[in-house]
Amino acid sequence: MLRDPSTKYRPFPQIDLPNREWPSRTITKPPRWLSTDLRDGNQALIDPMDAEKKTRMFDLLVKVGLKEIEVGFPSAGATEFDFISGLVKTGRIPDDVTVQVLTQSRRDLIQTSFESLRGAPKAIVHLYNAVSPAWRKIVFGLTREQIKQIAIDGAKILRDCAAAQPDTDWHFEYSPETFSTAELDFSVEVCEAVMDVLRPTPEHKLILNLPATVECATPNIYADQIEWFGKHIRNRDSIAISLHTHNDRGTGVAAAELGLMAGADRVEGCLLGNGERTGNCDLVTVALNMYTQGLSPGLDLSDIDEVVNTITYCTQLPVHPRTPYAGDLVFTAFSGSHQDAIKKGFASQEARNDELWEVPYLPIDPADLGRSYEAVIRVNSQSGKGGVAWVIEQDKGLKLPKRLQADFSRHVQALADETSRELNAADIWGQFEKSYLAKADDRFVLGAYDETRGPNGDRIFAGDIEVAGEHHSVSGRGNGLISSVVAAIRDEFGVDLEVADYVEHAIGKGSDVRAAAYVECRTDDGRTVWGVGIDEDIATASVRAVLSAANRA
Amino acid sequence: MLRDPSTKYRPFPQIDLPNREWPSRTITKPPRWLSTDLRDGNQALIDPMDAEKKTRMFDLLVKVGLKEIEVGFPSAGATEFDFISGLVKTGRIPDDVTVQVLTQSRRDLIQTSFESLRGAPKAIVHLYNAVSPAWRKIVFGLTREQIKQIAIDGAKILRDCAAAQPDTDWHFEYSPETFSTAELDFSVEVCEAVMDVLRPTPEHKLILNLPATVECATPNIYADQIEWFGKHIRNRDSIAISLHTHNDRGTGVAAAELGLMAGADRVEGCLLGNGERTGNCDLVTVALNMYTQGLSPGLDLSDIDEVVNTITYCTQLPVHPRTPYAGDLVFTAFSGSHQDAIKKGFASQEARNDELWEVPYLPIDPADLGRSYEAVIRVNSQSGKGGVAWVIEQDKGLKLPKRLQADFSRHVQALADETSRELNAADIWGQFEKSYLAKADDRFVLGAYDETRGPNGDRIFAGDIEVAGEHHSVSGRGNGLISSVVAAIRDEFGVDLEVADYVEHAIGKGSDVRAAAYVECRTDDGRTVWGVGIDEDIATASVRAVLSAANRA
Repeated sequence: MLRDPSTKYRPFPQIDLPNREWPSRTITKPPRWLSTDLRDGNQALIDPMDAEKKTRMFDLLVKVGLKEIEVGFPSAGATEFDFISGLVKTGRIPDDVTVQVLTQSRRDLIQTSFESLRGAPKAIVHLYNAVSPAWRKIVFGLTREQIKQIAIDGAKILRDCAAAQPDTDWHFEYSPETFSTAELDFSVEVCEAVMDVLRPTPEHKLILNLPATVECATPNIYADQIEWFGKHIRNRDSIAISLHTHNDRGTGVAAAELGLMAGADRVEGCLLGNGERTGNCDLVTVALNMYTQGLSPGLDLSDIDEVVNTITYCTQLPVHPRTPYAGDLVFTAFSGSHQDAIKKGFASQEARNDELWEVPYLPIDPADLGRSYEAVIRVNSQSGKGGVAWVIEQDKGLKLPKRLQADFSRHVQALADETSRELNAADIWGQFEKSYLAKADDRFVLGAYDETRGPNGDRIFAGDIEVAGEHHSVSGRGNGLISSVVAAIRDEFGVDLEVADYVEHAIGKGSDVRAAAYVECRTDDGRTVWGVGIDEDIATASVRAVLSAANRA
Repeated sequence: MLRDPSTKYRPFPQIDLPNREWPSRTITKPPRWLSTDLRDGNQALIDPMDAEKKTRMFDLLVKVGLKEIEVGFPSAGATEFDFISGLVKTGRIPDDVTVQVLTQSRRDLIQTSFESLRGAPKAIVHLYNAVSPAWRKIVFGLTREQIKQIAIDGAKILRDCAAAQPDTDWHFEYSPETFSTAELDFSVEVCEAVMDVLRPTPEHKLILNLPATVECATPNIYADQIEWFGKHIRNRDSIAISLHTHNDRGTGVAAAELGLMAGADRVEGCLLGNGERTGNCDLVTVALNMYTQGLSPGLDLSDIDEVVNTITYCTQLPVHPRTPYAGDLVFTAFSGSHQDAIKKGFASQEARNDELWEVPYLPIDPADLGRSYEAVIRVNSQSGKGGVAWVIEQDKGLKLPKRLQADFSRHVQALADETSRELNAADIWGQFEKSYLAKADDRFVLGAYDETRGPNGDRIFAGDIEVAGEHHSVSGRGNGLISSVVAAIRDEFGVDLEVADYVEHAIGKGSDVRAAAYVECRTDDGRTVWGVGIDEDIATASVRAVLSAANRA
């Protein structure tokens, strides 16, 4: 490197937090959730949502179970105002859902915000101003005192506007914006000044939202800040601490989780992590992370594909195939050893028959998100025998014996190397047919046959076998059907097979039931060949299996 | 919710770690990096890379500065083997780069792995077997002792194979796979058994890689596990602890960072977080996170777009627009207040003229990643005056006075509401021309004019002004050019303007220089109107500005 730009940046300072408690804690209950999809999410879109998209988004949020929804910034323009006021007026907001609006600390903007909510039975007005030194210096050119006064003035206007619209049950949220890069004592000071005006109580709490407006440190630092704030703020029982993380360093979800361990009560974010720049905290991930720890998040994500579809429609942004829980590839294993382990996990799950989920490489049951198992195992040149066998079993009901799996995986591997692409179930089945069941290039094709019992209990096979269009009447004798067929083809065609193993099982149930037979044979030159036969009749399936092996001998 | 599937899952147990140290630590030096793009990344692709793509990927990894590169799983098939052995034979591996290959603990696979590296001056062979209870029980049906024996047997084969190819400087890595869900004491026991065979020294360390094969807990738990392991493993100075996180809970980067604080020496991952399911740890994010803390990561990511382009080509997977550092939208602000702050940040940066980066909402200088500032501020209906003004200044060199910004932002807002899409620079300029500079629907068009000085120092404006195709000879007198023009149009057309403010500046430099003039006027009915004039001549620009205001009056 010619240039080392790291000299342009400074390490983030440590937080002075003696007796740090959060690393010893766990998350034991779900937080209050606040969706800001329609506000922080919307303002970060290339094409902000129109009224139709906003309505679809709102309905999705309600369906998922969000009880607090930030619906916009009413003073930002007519579009925003009309949507919010329309929501209130049309009665689209369920009784148990509270909408929230954001406003800067200016009288006209606050008044417009209250006006947009006229008629709502209950609502949250969210006031913010930036408090960090960089913002004070660069953006506002104001002192600490002046910044604090902005918050106090805003709080007074909130109080007065609320008094002027007494039919609504008003709640308030205050955000010392850029909290994570501000002096902690100053954030506490400003928040307490706001509390002095709004006088929250344990029954009517003030929400204090502590944003990592830009993520600037490792997530443990944010947790330290949250714990420090919670330990120093006055009347802790009269406030709800809300977390608002962003993902600039790729640790927005972690910061929210560690922040909850540090004592926060509420999490703000967007479904699937939409939001400014790298996005807000992804509420889907934080919620489903709880779920897999045995905690019910209080959100219904049982149809994750509906969430994905609505979000991509409304935001016009894609959901990456590796997005936790929601991406197309997150339940997919291509690697052979992974596929093998998953296959065993499913079998063990079925055998145990308890409710507990324990399948290797799958931290969550795809079915709990409305996903099928179909995509779990996909086959490419990296895949092993386990995955291939699983696909064959899922699709065709064939339970291949382990050594046949190994035999077949070589055929699949060759095809994968040859095509250099993912193989789908049809490709795999095609290769299976070609390897074991094919008719066209068969040497031996079974015609009509009889199976009879000889005087000493021997079995006698007598039938018609076609080779290259020519019919041969053959017969053989053995201690069972298979050995009699082996004898017949040895005597007639000189093909000498020794049967090493034989497995048969039913496919399907009831009137559709068929039989699959697998036979492992040794040839006279020491090779192992597998034969597979499928037929409605058990006996015929095994005859076919022997002929299949003979074809390969 | 009808069903609560959280009962299927159990909380992850806490780690018994008294005197936990990592939360008080910071990352003070970059780790050793190991790219597994060609192994863990490749095996997770829908279409695994062919030899051409693998070569491009390898060259990118070298260019970025990776010194340890896991190039594949040579025993998995001919494609893998041939690529790896080809790399070695063609001399494509720089002297300061060490390649690594992965193998399961079986003699034939290990032998194939060594064979693939024949001729390499230096190489790492990476042995793994899964050690966690779920894998022991479900996948292998083996006891602890049997699992440990697999590792010991593998280590002995490694030792013997290395002795048989003495021309290579062999290094070893051992992974107790599924470490994060295994009993910590058992992982230590297995690793120490491997150490007993391979006898690492401080000069020739053994890499012990501790994978979160599936991410199953909050990232602090992984850090606890790493710290616990480091405190309990024998001969700590003879081993390098390597982190290998996945992102199933969206906290893979956080786990790696906290793991480094917990004492690890090395980080494994993929560029931009490719890898099984939700992906491996994203090395780009972890590296650039260090960078913004004033630490040089030792990787060269100064052309992030090249990284994005190569990765998307080789993996055939997209990079999400919100991917930290690399996504298309991560340096973009649409919101008005954000744009305003960024604009002030750039101005302050320029004024300070020191090296330190401090721009609101931009945690990193886009230029350090080879990105331009063009995309930083984008305009939609959520955007405010700051962003619009910034675009006009960047594109056209016009530095709009603050109150004119407010005036113009109303025009832009109207257009954005009307079109309901993002406005590009051309849209904004079109709206500016229409609002202040338009010719077609102008009332007053300037023709030739003279400016003379009267006997008492007054200025006299006399010229031709065209209105709806009709030419008017006008004249006016004032104490300056502007007031004389104002007088002229008042006398001739009855348009009464009072000039409240006036600003003029040069656009461009040298022979291309032009002048921009902005005039804020009060009309006789109390409205404020702005006029803008642009001309090669300073005086003419101000005359045009007054006429522009008169057109709006």
